[in-house]
Amino acid sequence: MSIYEKKAILPTELLSFMYGSLVVRLTKDIQDTNEINKKIEELGFNIGKRYIDEIIDTLGKSVDSSNPELVVKLVTTLLKQYLGIYSAEIKQVAEKEYSITFNENPFNSYVELPDQLKDLWYSNVICGIIRGLLDTVNYQVECTYVKDKLKGDETNAISLKIIQYVEERFVDDEE
Amino acid sequence: MSIYEKKAILPTELLSFMYGSLVVRLTKDIQDTNEINKKIEELGFNIGKRYIDEIIDTLGKSVDSSNPELVVKLVTTLLKQYLGIYSAEIKQVAEKEYSITFNENPFNSYVELPDQLKDLWYSNVICGIIRGLLDTVNYQVECTYVKDKLKGDETNAISLKIIQYVEERFVDDEE
Repeated sequence: MSIYEKKAILPTELLSFMYGSLVVRLTKDIQDTNEINKKIEELGFNIGKRYIDEIIDTLGKSVDSSNPELVVKLVTTLLKQYLGIYSAEIKQVAEKEYSITFNENPFNSYVELPDQLKDLWYSNVICGIIRGLLDTVNYQVECTYVKDKLKGDETNAISLKIIQYVEERFVDDEE
Repeated sequence: MSIYEKKAILPTELLSFMYGSLVVRLTKDIQDTNEINKKIEELGFNIGKRYIDEIIDTLGKSVDSSNPELVVKLVTTLLKQYLGIYSAEIKQVAEKEYSITFNENPFNSYVELPDQLKDLWYSNVICGIIRGLLDTVNYQVECTYVKDKLKGDETNAISLKIIQYVEERFVDDEE
């Protein structure tokens, strides 16, 4: 499977290339594309959990994690400052539902989806990163890719739904 | 296998995490560590080939690729400017042999090698990237990891040997 065009790459694109290699590897190992989507999301979840301290520092110490506005703040900071998705826009579309749209992302530069992978949400890692980040501040969310320019959509779009805020939770520091 | 410590990561570390996920994936698929070392090197080779246009641009158009000094220039530029390995030092140790030493690299931040992977050259991707880059300007080289701080060595070291310069070669632009 050739996911990449032949083109010179810049340092920032090294990430894209590594991520691509990982996805290609997964497509070789796993037949079911939905299963690959899940794997990529889980990978993101584990990354997202690592960002929280940095981002909370960025936002200031007086963060009230029970305030849903925090979700927008956290996700905006994550996308723009930590994932380099500067075009990201987050809009509230229902009481606990947000729509995230963006034009480009650092994971899929130079990528073309071959036909046999039309069900792949190539950058699903982003959904996982968002879910992992919010999980760390006790927000259980559903985060799903709904539009992808790689599939011919006019924009990239992710739907974010807050399922519940877990008021108190045992934090296992060992892991 | 837990390759990572629990720690917040910065944007630049996203690469390290992605690379780590790829290596972990390979360790799950492939039992023979030497085979993993090869796979990682091949991955690098494909990346290295993509850097050449950018780097030649950086060095200026009047590059004489038959001059072995070019090898040092190319590799230095690659390591420092394109892989962020600022501490890299290249020394000639024999007629066609160089020793590359460096302190840190962007692929192995937050990594600890578990005992069962003591034969893994974790950042062997760098050797592949160097080999791929030089292959593009017709230098056939042998590039091998010889010291790795992850294994307790006092520094990281890569040995680079020029096998031959292929004077003229058919360049296949299709690939």
